[in-house]
Amino acid sequence: MVDHPLRPSAVVGVVGGGQLARMMAQAAGPLGIDLRVLGGPSDEGAATVAPIERGDITDPGTLERFAAACDVLTFDHELVPIETVRHVEEAGHAVRPGSASLRLSDKALLREALAGRFPLPPHTVAHAASEAVAFGDEHGWPVVVKAARGGYDGRGVNVAENAQDVALFMHALDEGVPAVVEPVLDLEAELAVVVVRRPGGEMRTYPVVRTIQVDGQCHEVAYPAGVERSVEEAATRLAGEVAETIGAVGILAVECFVVDGEVLLNEIAPRPHNSGHWTIDGAVTSQFENHLRAVLDRPLGSTEPSWPAVTMLNLIPGDPPADPRDHVAAALATGAHVHVYDKTPRPGRKVGHVTATGSDPGAVRAQAIAAAASMGSITAGGSP
Amino acid sequence: MVDHPLRPSAVVGVVGGGQLARMMAQAAGPLGIDLRVLGGPSDEGAATVAPIERGDITDPGTLERFAAACDVLTFDHELVPIETVRHVEEAGHAVRPGSASLRLSDKALLREALAGRFPLPPHTVAHAASEAVAFGDEHGWPVVVKAARGGYDGRGVNVAENAQDVALFMHALDEGVPAVVEPVLDLEAELAVVVVRRPGGEMRTYPVVRTIQVDGQCHEVAYPAGVERSVEEAATRLAGEVAETIGAVGILAVECFVVDGEVLLNEIAPRPHNSGHWTIDGAVTSQFENHLRAVLDRPLGSTEPSWPAVTMLNLIPGDPPADPRDHVAAALATGAHVHVYDKTPRPGRKVGHVTATGSDPGAVRAQAIAAAASMGSITAGGSP
Repeated sequence: MVDHPLRPSAVVGVVGGGQLARMMAQAAGPLGIDLRVLGGPSDEGAATVAPIERGDITDPGTLERFAAACDVLTFDHELVPIETVRHVEEAGHAVRPGSASLRLSDKALLREALAGRFPLPPHTVAHAASEAVAFGDEHGWPVVVKAARGGYDGRGVNVAENAQDVALFMHALDEGVPAVVEPVLDLEAELAVVVVRRPGGEMRTYPVVRTIQVDGQCHEVAYPAGVERSVEEAATRLAGEVAETIGAVGILAVECFVVDGEVLLNEIAPRPHNSGHWTIDGAVTSQFENHLRAVLDRPLGSTEPSWPAVTMLNLIPGDPPADPRDHVAAALATGAHVHVYDKTPRPGRKVGHVTATGSDPGAVRAQAIAAAASMGSITAGGSP
Repeated sequence: MVDHPLRPSAVVGVVGGGQLARMMAQAAGPLGIDLRVLGGPSDEGAATVAPIERGDITDPGTLERFAAACDVLTFDHELVPIETVRHVEEAGHAVRPGSASLRLSDKALLREALAGRFPLPPHTVAHAASEAVAFGDEHGWPVVVKAARGGYDGRGVNVAENAQDVALFMHALDEGVPAVVEPVLDLEAELAVVVVRRPGGEMRTYPVVRTIQVDGQCHEVAYPAGVERSVEEAATRLAGEVAETIGAVGILAVECFVVDGEVLLNEIAPRPHNSGHWTIDGAVTSQFENHLRAVLDRPLGSTEPSWPAVTMLNLIPGDPPADPRDHVAAALATGAHVHVYDKTPRPGRKVGHVTATGSDPGAVRAQAIAAAASMGSITAGGSP
């Protein structure tokens, strides 16, 4: 970093400097990959482990200059405007995933692109409050109103009891951003399937996991998912077909609802995803290493789990926020693996995760909870 | 690295900037540890993954200034003079391992300190050629003449057929460095046991591995070791007792000979060691993470293997030297894990390693050999 006398085996540029870029950087070293980051002014996470350039990630010229120094450009988030991504592609730089699949992290565009081909929840895309109200009147109240893009960790997702709520939520949307409106579903489970795919189509799929959300924010990821085998198979098949349909390159996380035994597509993330953090300590090849391999068009690593049971808990401070870095020793004493992100602790912000592995799902989960509790995380709350 | 807005959970300073410092740095990030390196002018390995300060590592003032900015000082190698280490300790800085155990990486001092308490090969410490010749005349020729310190990868170890050879080898020793003289033993196996120990005495031991040396340089490390259970137990017991006796802190690698079913102590390395590289991909906690935990006096991680069989092969270029970084994709295609060190390839120099994991030792070894072969390493030569 400080000096770099030798040519790397490849140069990967990551747009965005959060924990995903951080964990990509940690996976890059063993493969001789030089990983560089283009981050916004306040990005934390990557800065303590990789060289970070601060710049305007929405500016086509900035992005193109950054891409020109790299073998391939990839992403820590979906905040780069699609037109900017297209500009860089058109200038001849390798961008993976490309704009065609990146744009489908927009919940409305995803539904429009895949409706009729994949099982989706009942929904409408509302550009005006009246459209959302009509959906509620038809399918029953309350309804879920989701910002098509820009939301994360539950932000931008609201439950509307009536037309007045709808008006409030629609009014809060950014200019030009529509809402996806859906019924409040009776979920048996939320599942995630992480797929990795090379440009030529070689693809591997990690095992299905169950994700546990609280107020729309992921708290816990569990392997095995604890659902019927037929449900796991349906989710795996769905994820693979979605990845092929949209031409995903790199990691694609596919999030699903299970309703009445049926697997419905909820949303996708075309990048390493929270539901795959467990693979660092719990699978043969981590999602971060496989993402790098895929975007560089190198052979993929095994996606097999290394243990019969794995639980990942996010580290999310309460109020006042504890800093997990003050409690690393206590967390290690539980036997769990600890990952801190070097992010300023704030209430409700993901600043790390812990992973427990072993044979017995109950014991593994208890260990992860003990670790999260020792670090003052709200995710240690007990049973979901 | 480029900016560091947040306090780390701890600061560890590593003296020496080779691949051990590199792999410590890779283990430091998830735990929020800021790892800094003080390296010599030509050190490679760590420089592409951690901030490296170039300086004279034998100079007490330089070392003390470096130590003052760190919570604890540890080592990538044994090249710092013991007097310099003592100077830093006496100035009140935490140095782990300390000078008392560091000095025992000197083969002559080790034998003097442990003779009578642990089973050692027959030996003498020769300060003059005549002493070595007398040993050969008594125990039979040829004899092995080893530089007590400064040797590595087989350098400094020679087989003398007669008094003339002895004179030649003794003459080549650095001023003041004695030789350890031993018979040429009929080795059933060479084993290594990696132990990790905290300042207060908490200790964990990795499983016994077999090491395969060619011309004194480690080519291969295999788990399981494939020796009798009683031999494994004797080696494990020996390693633990040595660690306690010398007050080791951090990783201690204990290398043993098996002769006539008996386990003899060969030498020790008070730091992460080549015989433990397999733990990155093959054990619950890597030796590098456990070394950091131990020198920071934090709870140790499990040393259990994650797989029934693991083979590690060093990547060592032949002549002309191939650069493993040119062949990462081919190596990944074999299914093995790849670790390159960002070191300039030279014939006979360790510039990386590959690790294969699985259920069947034969298949695992074959995969590791295929990976090493694809990277042009001489360690892919086939059966030892």
